[in-house]
Amino acid sequence: MINFEFYNPTRIVFGEGQIAKLKELVPADAKVLMLYGGGSIFKNGVYEQVKEALDGVRVTEFGGVEPNPHFETLMKAVELIRHEGLDFILAVGGGSVIDGAKFISAAVNFDNDPKEILYKRMSIKENAVPFGTVLTLPATGSEMNSGSVVTIAATQEKLPFGGPALFPKFSICDPTVISSLPKRQLQNGVIDAFTHVMEQYLTYPVGASLQDRFAEGILQTLVEIGVKVVENPKDYTLAANFMWSCTMALNGLIQKGVPTDWATHMIGHELTALYGIDHARTLAIIAPNLYTVMIDHKEEKLAQYGRRVWNIEGVDNKQVAVEAIAKTVEFFDQMGMEGKLSSYTSDTEDIIELINDRFEKRGWTKLGENGIVTPDKVREIVRLSIA
Amino acid sequence: MINFEFYNPTRIVFGEGQIAKLKELVPADAKVLMLYGGGSIFKNGVYEQVKEALDGVRVTEFGGVEPNPHFETLMKAVELIRHEGLDFILAVGGGSVIDGAKFISAAVNFDNDPKEILYKRMSIKENAVPFGTVLTLPATGSEMNSGSVVTIAATQEKLPFGGPALFPKFSICDPTVISSLPKRQLQNGVIDAFTHVMEQYLTYPVGASLQDRFAEGILQTLVEIGVKVVENPKDYTLAANFMWSCTMALNGLIQKGVPTDWATHMIGHELTALYGIDHARTLAIIAPNLYTVMIDHKEEKLAQYGRRVWNIEGVDNKQVAVEAIAKTVEFFDQMGMEGKLSSYTSDTEDIIELINDRFEKRGWTKLGENGIVTPDKVREIVRLSIA
Repeated sequence: MINFEFYNPTRIVFGEGQIAKLKELVPADAKVLMLYGGGSIFKNGVYEQVKEALDGVRVTEFGGVEPNPHFETLMKAVELIRHEGLDFILAVGGGSVIDGAKFISAAVNFDNDPKEILYKRMSIKENAVPFGTVLTLPATGSEMNSGSVVTIAATQEKLPFGGPALFPKFSICDPTVISSLPKRQLQNGVIDAFTHVMEQYLTYPVGASLQDRFAEGILQTLVEIGVKVVENPKDYTLAANFMWSCTMALNGLIQKGVPTDWATHMIGHELTALYGIDHARTLAIIAPNLYTVMIDHKEEKLAQYGRRVWNIEGVDNKQVAVEAIAKTVEFFDQMGMEGKLSSYTSDTEDIIELINDRFEKRGWTKLGENGIVTPDKVREIVRLSIA
Repeated sequence: MINFEFYNPTRIVFGEGQIAKLKELVPADAKVLMLYGGGSIFKNGVYEQVKEALDGVRVTEFGGVEPNPHFETLMKAVELIRHEGLDFILAVGGGSVIDGAKFISAAVNFDNDPKEILYKRMSIKENAVPFGTVLTLPATGSEMNSGSVVTIAATQEKLPFGGPALFPKFSICDPTVISSLPKRQLQNGVIDAFTHVMEQYLTYPVGASLQDRFAEGILQTLVEIGVKVVENPKDYTLAANFMWSCTMALNGLIQKGVPTDWATHMIGHELTALYGIDHARTLAIIAPNLYTVMIDHKEEKLAQYGRRVWNIEGVDNKQVAVEAIAKTVEFFDQMGMEGKLSSYTSDTEDIIELINDRFEKRGWTKLGENGIVTPDKVREIVRLSIA
C-alpha cells in the first residue's frame, strides 16, 4: 500500500426530500449565486424545490452552463459575483454545473488571469468562494470531490484543475431527481462512474486489499443495477444505489494507497473537445482498447477484476484478462454505448496524429500509472478506437 | 436505502514514517497536552518519534490513561488543561487514549458537571478543544469518528457519547507501530473491527447494495489477514490492510443508509465493566449468541453474509445462516477468542439478572435494530454466553 492522505470535508445529505434542508445548509445571510445549466431543473421540479427551500434568502440566478462547461461562460458568472458582491455559490445540476461552480469559486478572488488556473493546472488552497450543490445527475462524483474539468471553447481544450479549497461545503443528493432524466444521460452516468473506478483500480497490485474490495464493490453494484436503472429510473432503490455509487466512485476514497491510471480520461477528453462526443461515451470507446494495448502491464489486476466482478473461472491470468475485457465491452454495449469513434464521425483520418500533437504540446508523453502509456501506446489505442 | 447525512472531516495521514509530519499538522503556536496510556509508547519508539517531530512545540504530558478510560483519570487531565491554559490535545495511543481525548475535549469548556456528558449521552456540537491523534493500536476506529466510550470507575459504568465537534482534526496512522504489539492486542483489534462491521451490516436488507458490498469487503479483508497479521505483525502489507480496515469499519461510512444493531456492544460493555474482560473478547462472547437468538430477524442478511464472505453454498437461507454463524465462531476461535464467559470467571450465577437490572435502570428495554432485542432476548443471549 502506498502512503496517502485522505481528507474530505463535504457534508452529504442523501435521500428523498432532502432539498428542503437547503436553508439550514446555506450560511445565514448568504448572498447566493444559484448556478444551473440548460434548464432541465425547470422541467423536473428541482427549481421550484430549491426556490421554496431558499425562501427569504437573497438569490441571484445564473443559468446556461453548458455540458463540458466553458471558461468563457463561467467568466460571466465570475463577473456577476464580483459586481453583485455575492458570497456563496449554489450549484444546481450535474457534473458540468458543479465543475463550473468550482472554477467560479477559484476564479473570483484569483489575482492573475484565471486562464492560468487551467493552463498551470493549479491546486487552489485558499480564497475560494464557498459553495454547495444540489445534484441532479449522478455521474461524475464532482459533488464530493475537489476536482473539476473546464473547456476553453476558443481553443477546444478541456483541462483539469482542483485543490483542497474546492470541496463543496455540502451536497444534497436526492435520488428521485433521476426519474425524469433522458435514457442517454442515465447510461452515461453509469459508465462514467464505472470508468472512474477502473482508472483507480485497474493498474497493478500493491497489496491494497481493502481498496480493491471497495472498488470491486462499486463495480459489482453498477453491473447489477446498470441496465435496470436505465429502464426503471423511478425505482428508488435502484436510483439510490446508482447515485451513491457515482459519488463513492470519485470522492477520493478508493484512490488512496493505490496507483492510478487516468489515461482513458486524458484521451477521452480530446474526443469530447474535438468532436463533442459525450464524456462517458468517449470513455467507453477508449477504455477497452487501452486495456487491450496495456494488457501486459495490467494483466494481474485485469484477471482479479475478471474473477471477482465477472466470476470468470480459469487459472491462466492472461486468458481471464482477455475475457474480462470482452465482458466489459459487452456491458458497455448493454448500456447503450456505441463502441467506436466511427459511430460518431467519419472525420477520423488525422485523429491519431492530432491527439498526439496536442499531448506533445502539453508535454504529456508519459500517461497512466508509472508513465507506461507512451505516445506509441496512445497511437495504438486511438487506432483501435476508430472503427 | 434510508436517508442519511455523511460528514467526516478528519484528515487521515497514513503510512510508514508519517509521524514526522506532526509539526505541519499541529496548529502553529499550539500549547499541546500530549495524552498517552500505560507507557507502551516508550518501548516501541513512538514517544521519541512524536517528541522529535514536535521539537520546539510547547508540550505538556499526561500519561496513564487506562484501557476503558476512567472518567476519574480523565478529569485530572481536564484540570491540567484548564490550569495550564493548553489549547490542543494530541492523543498518542489506541482507542482508549483517543476516546479519553474526546471526553477531555468535551469536558474542558463544559459548564455543568462533566458526568452529564455521559449520563445524558450528550452530543457535543461546539466548544470542544481541538485534538489530533497518533494511532498506536488499530481496533476501535476512534481515530476517524466522533464517538467515545468512557467508564465511571466508581460505579462500574461504561457509557457512550459523541458529537460532531469530536472528530479528530487529524490522525496519523503508521502501520509499522503494530510490530511490537502483544498478540492478544492484535487479536482484539481484528475482532473489534470485525464486530463493528457486523453491527452495521447484520440487520435486515434495505436495498443498500453498495453499503453491503463495502461492509463485506472489510469483513473479507479481515478474514484474509486476521490470522496472518497476528503471526506476522512486521509484514507491512498485512499491517496496513489491518489498520485501514479498522478505521473504515467505524468511520461512519458503512452505517449510512442502513439500520444498525449495536446490542452486542451494549451487552459486551457490561461484561467489561463487571469483570474487566477485554472489549473485543466480550464481543466475541456475545455476538454469535446474539445472531443465534435473533436468527429469525437476521436470517436474510446472515445468509447473504454466509454466501458472500464465507462462500457457503445452498439455497436455504436458514441453513446458510446457521452455517455462517458456525463459520464466525470458528474464525473467532482461530483468532484466539475464548468463546464463553466461563473462561474468564466462575462468578456467573447472577449475571443474567444483573445485566437485566442495569439495562432496566437505564431504560434500555429495546436494543438492536427496530428495538427487537428485548429483555427476554438479552437474558437468552447472556444465558447462551455463560458456558
